[in-house]
Amino acid sequence: MQNASPIELNANENSLGMSEAAKQAIVDSLDVAFRYPDGPRAALISKIAQDNGVSENQVSLGNGSSENIRTVVQMLLDKSLIAGQALQVVVPDPTFAYGEMYATFSGLPVVKVPLTAENYDLDLPALQQAAADFEGMTLFYLCNPNNPTGTITAADAFKAWVINAPEHHYFILDEAYSEYVTDPSFESGIEWIKQDLSRNIVVVRTFSKLCALAGMRVGYAIANPEMIAQIESFASMDNTNLSGAVAALATLNDTAYLDLSLRTTNKSRQMVESVLEELGLRYLPSQTNFIFHEIKGDVQTYIDRMREHGVLVGRVFPPVTNGFNRVTLGTPEEMAIFIKVLRSFREKGWV
Amino acid sequence: MQNASPIELNANENSLGMSEAAKQAIVDSLDVAFRYPDGPRAALISKIAQDNGVSENQVSLGNGSSENIRTVVQMLLDKSLIAGQALQVVVPDPTFAYGEMYATFSGLPVVKVPLTAENYDLDLPALQQAAADFEGMTLFYLCNPNNPTGTITAADAFKAWVINAPEHHYFILDEAYSEYVTDPSFESGIEWIKQDLSRNIVVVRTFSKLCALAGMRVGYAIANPEMIAQIESFASMDNTNLSGAVAALATLNDTAYLDLSLRTTNKSRQMVESVLEELGLRYLPSQTNFIFHEIKGDVQTYIDRMREHGVLVGRVFPPVTNGFNRVTLGTPEEMAIFIKVLRSFREKGWV
Repeated sequence: MQNASPIELNANENSLGMSEAAKQAIVDSLDVAFRYPDGPRAALISKIAQDNGVSENQVSLGNGSSENIRTVVQMLLDKSLIAGQALQVVVPDPTFAYGEMYATFSGLPVVKVPLTAENYDLDLPALQQAAADFEGMTLFYLCNPNNPTGTITAADAFKAWVINAPEHHYFILDEAYSEYVTDPSFESGIEWIKQDLSRNIVVVRTFSKLCALAGMRVGYAIANPEMIAQIESFASMDNTNLSGAVAALATLNDTAYLDLSLRTTNKSRQMVESVLEELGLRYLPSQTNFIFHEIKGDVQTYIDRMREHGVLVGRVFPPVTNGFNRVTLGTPEEMAIFIKVLRSFREKGWV
Repeated sequence: MQNASPIELNANENSLGMSEAAKQAIVDSLDVAFRYPDGPRAALISKIAQDNGVSENQVSLGNGSSENIRTVVQMLLDKSLIAGQALQVVVPDPTFAYGEMYATFSGLPVVKVPLTAENYDLDLPALQQAAADFEGMTLFYLCNPNNPTGTITAADAFKAWVINAPEHHYFILDEAYSEYVTDPSFESGIEWIKQDLSRNIVVVRTFSKLCALAGMRVGYAIANPEMIAQIESFASMDNTNLSGAVAALATLNDTAYLDLSLRTTNKSRQMVESVLEELGLRYLPSQTNFIFHEIKGDVQTYIDRMREHGVLVGRVFPPVTNGFNRVTLGTPEEMAIFIKVLRSFREKGWV
């Protein structure tokens, strides 16, 4: 069952691959790639602003949304040092690592607030308390949907908290997977920014997931103009490469590809949910291109066995060590192989 | 004489265009561009380290060397705020703008030290004095060769100053154009790093010039491992896009292209020098892919007239306003057009 190349279901990439329109756009741009990419960069900003109903000065392009996260952390670090105030970063645990990583790089204290024990939700009261207990500024790094759980935080209590938070509390709302969300209780932070309900929110988005451009390194932040100006001071000049800019633009315009991409992921999700139900393995309600599901046993052993059977799946996500694993929703063909391996594991009594 | 598209001789790009090997490498990578670019990124670091005779932990990739410049400025800003010391940035004037821009973005004071009046050289005593006069840390941003002058700073006095500078003086040596240098009195700061003569030097290099990859946004810094670790804390994660990584690798391996590129620029330089001599217009000894030359008259008027005649040339570089302009050395065909226009300007009495 070992494949020559393993099936990679461990990084939440879009296994469909780039849209053909994006590939063609890159090929068509090769003859001008010796020039600085100012024009396509400006066009992409314009398109993002238009699609999101904000003005261009509310958009900050990043070299991947990882750069956007970095700019916010470093802008606030600078602000806090100048003000002579302490700054901490508060994150749910587990979540996507980059908020914590940039904080740690910069020597900032990080408070990790465990997800709720029952449903692995954000523990909103505990998150708030972590800031209330701190003398100084707090930056919350919150993914919605969260990773690795794949679940959303519903708008009601979440929105009320964020828009009423004190002036020295800041929020990165990482919406890397928002295009996959169908749950009507989700609301993008972009709406709150547009309604000017808070000036302390930065929403970050990426072209690495639904748009299948992880290798191209393009992401963006949306916030109010003053916040954008502040974080842009910490961005790199000319930070969008030409291939990424033209590919992102082409993908946004390729609605047929985006529809296909969503349909494919939805089909893969149904396939996996169906087998998990059949095998009696609990899973969280995924609103993303991955599923966090029970594997009943030691996670590292499971990961190793999957690799031995030609399938790479997500890693251990402490502190959730009680037998849950994250699998990326690749193509239905890839998921059929994953399912075959998973069934064989059941036969062996491994899951 | 107006062309449909103007000839762009204003951004020091390499008009030859990307090497065919680089284009092919990008095309060949499109099918995996939906994945994160870790592998090619690591391969590029390895190649850069090898070519420069340093270890991999002495290389920091940047999203263009502009990111490398940013990381140094922001790392030192952070260090100075934590130490409770002031930080200033000292730059020659004129020079490439990014050192000053990042400093200004971060609210740092910038001291601009005019080039020498006669030959537009770096005024080394005045630069040193600007740091000696300051209570706190100083970062020097020095391009060698300098831009817009195209001239080098010879190693002798320069090296003695840099390697013997006090511990609280730091140096970014921007060697964006070093591949063009033929003057034996030039020495790369990379040599001084390799000999461990100073731990306060960061040399930055770019793929945007000789390698013709300005649109791909790839640059790098070389320094001692401790310095690299410090500045990497201020870099963006996954900061090298796949197209850029594979194109940079392919270009470094395409020595025939690099030779052709140098030969082409040298030919264009000879053509321009020859006509400048004929017209009695002074020029500085270019060690780059551009020439800073006399135009005898108002610089903005000259630029406007060149544009009206289908040629974009460099901008006004205050405080050098006494009739010098920067022209990029494009292909010989482009320079023939530029020369034709320049001769026509002489006939009109404009230069």
